Amino acid sequence: MSEQKVDTRLWSSKARNLSPYVPGEQPQHANLCKLNTNENPFPPSPKVGEAIANVLEQQAYDLRLYPAPESDDLRASLAELYNLDINEVFVGNGSDEVLALVFASFFLKERPVLAPDISYSFYPVYAQTFGVELVQIALEDDFSIDPDAYRQPCSGIIIANPNAPTGLLLSLADIRKLASEHSNSVIVIDEAYIDFACIDETNSSTQVSAVSLINEFDNILVTQTFSKSRSLAGLRVGMAFGNASLIEALTRMKNSFNSYPLDKLAQAGATASVLDNDYFEQTRQQVIDLRKSLTTQLTTLGYQVLPSHANFVFARPKDGNASAVAAKLREQGIIVRHFDKPRIQEYLRITVGTQAQHERLIDALTAMQTYSEDSETISNMG
Amino acid sequence: MSEQKVDTRLWSSKARNLSPYVPGEQPQHANLCKLNTNENPFPPSPKVGEAIANVLEQQAYDLRLYPAPESDDLRASLAELYNLDINEVFVGNGSDEVLALVFASFFLKERPVLAPDISYSFYPVYAQTFGVELVQIALEDDFSIDPDAYRQPCSGIIIANPNAPTGLLLSLADIRKLASEHSNSVIVIDEAYIDFACIDETNSSTQVSAVSLINEFDNILVTQTFSKSRSLAGLRVGMAFGNASLIEALTRMKNSFNSYPLDKLAQAGATASVLDNDYFEQTRQQVIDLRKSLTTQLTTLGYQVLPSHANFVFARPKDGNASAVAAKLREQGIIVRHFDKPRIQEYLRITVGTQAQHERLIDALTAMQTYSEDSETISNMG
Repeated sequence: MSEQKVDTRLWSSKARNLSPYVPGEQPQHANLCKLNTNENPFPPSPKVGEAIANVLEQQAYDLRLYPAPESDDLRASLAELYNLDINEVFVGNGSDEVLALVFASFFLKERPVLAPDISYSFYPVYAQTFGVELVQIALEDDFSIDPDAYRQPCSGIIIANPNAPTGLLLSLADIRKLASEHSNSVIVIDEAYIDFACIDETNSSTQVSAVSLINEFDNILVTQTFSKSRSLAGLRVGMAFGNASLIEALTRMKNSFNSYPLDKLAQAGATASVLDNDYFEQTRQQVIDLRKSLTTQLTTLGYQVLPSHANFVFARPKDGNASAVAAKLREQGIIVRHFDKPRIQEYLRITVGTQAQHERLIDALTAMQTYSEDSETISNMG
Repeated sequence: MSEQKVDTRLWSSKARNLSPYVPGEQPQHANLCKLNTNENPFPPSPKVGEAIANVLEQQAYDLRLYPAPESDDLRASLAELYNLDINEVFVGNGSDEVLALVFASFFLKERPVLAPDISYSFYPVYAQTFGVELVQIALEDDFSIDPDAYRQPCSGIIIANPNAPTGLLLSLADIRKLASEHSNSVIVIDEAYIDFACIDETNSSTQVSAVSLINEFDNILVTQTFSKSRSLAGLRVGMAFGNASLIEALTRMKNSFNSYPLDKLAQAGATASVLDNDYFEQTRQQVIDLRKSLTTQLTTLGYQVLPSHANFVFARPKDGNASAVAAKLREQGIIVRHFDKPRIQEYLRITVGTQAQHERLIDALTAMQTYSEDSETISNMG
């Protein structure tokens, strides 16, 4: 429905004033090299499909029954994984739903919520949806987050860590500082990509997640997702970890909106994913390794690549012509994400893919440079 | 977490003031006769399990990818079923989520929304969640809805039809009247149970759904669910039908809250359910037949049973001691729903179950009466 034809006569003013989130496109063409929405190049654990098939075989009759409203088994498995109490764990229909409930539960106050000016573009949308004032704090010139810039009265702070689309990581020391300085505000750390982060790339078990801080700070809430490191974007499961009183607020808000957001199959599949930790560790290390090799290849081509802790890289072609490069890649069926926004319009966000996808991407970028640089063209012909 | 221990220091006032919806309990004991949450006694179409198994076999790798955000295949199947345009169809994570988006999209205005005083108990919760004023209009003495009682300024009207927990049906003529008299308000007909309704019990195809009115009235929005007549409460799928401009408002609201509420498996399973119309017609007729026999049996036991168009009956024991009866049934593992509210506290809402469940229920109720009525006890001993 085109914009000018919409009849909004019967809409609430809230509906009229929305600027909905625009997700990365999901084209369905064959042979596409899809590096635009940060999906995992590897399939989910085979245990996921087995668990769901088992529900279908053993309990198909029970699909007629409502699912467990609080997803108890799934929450128990996550509590065990992170050594938390089950009352410190909340799950929802993707971390997007969890984040929406977070805005309504903690940020709807007199004071504004603070967020980086360059970050997940759904944050300003949630603020609009729930009537929350959002103040954007500028990233530093190197795209890093300076905790001192957040020293102002606020209802809360929300930071994607690693941040998107930059991929940069905020240290636990900085998160502690934010939580200490804002003890009456909820500090939400959106860790959609945290499982790909590591301080020491040779040792992925180094502690980087703020989940390790929630027993120390009652005002830190951590959100995560099954869509990235667990390869289950198609199953819609996200979670939050925090003090039991924060989780209770989210639970009440959920039960005032939609009591059963996770269907039986999603609960079974997600639980199986959590229990198969070997597979999880193996594939996330593979993604980290692939990110490293992609970074090297792009750097060799003259790209400036930010040090990424996510399953994507944020890279600037040496001429800064990111928009043109994205368009040319698209002609060849290679989709990357370009944001036409101040400060980042010269960058491309490229999802870490398979080795084969990287080869196709690098070949295309190499051919582009060969074609555009006369001297190289001549030497290649010579 | 018990009420008195909750630390609400960091909550928004919205979170503090919520009175969340309390769904019917989902006890997990074996040999329970569960007649309390209006689930279908029959399993879903076998095509549902086949479709989901097929996704797991053919496309397990693709669970790593986000699902179709607007559930295009599912919406196309529903559009074809009801002879609508796909732009007149919306789907969500159960009709509860759809209804929440309805409140935010259409009822958040200066004037209040109107709803029957005895109806789905989630409506006042949504109103509170979204800051909507809700005015409850009293049902008539016979629990019927009088459209004339709704003749007052309002943002919209929401009516469950058939109504819950009464099971009574509002005629299409009355719905036309409401829509005509409130042409600047959205009239939402919540048809969670409509597939069990029929004017003529010998002919279940008689038209009762307001879906037949949406091309005539641009202010009628109809919501339905897969949880009842399609035996898929465990899959969380609901839908709305209405003028394309109403559907556009819901779509924008959804995309300002959660872009992908339906996972890949739920989309595939729900689509398969819609396509298997033979199974649907067969099981809904079986439920209608079982409702008829249950009504007869309860009437024979002296119960006053309202004429139900849903997959439950609303029945008053002859002594009006509904609460005591529910408690005694529970001792025997038979769970029915009792609402401790004015006007309806003498009634029980009993879900239509299987023939075997009905026998167990009727046996228990008969024994209760035999035990409590001395004269019958003596004659049985004699």
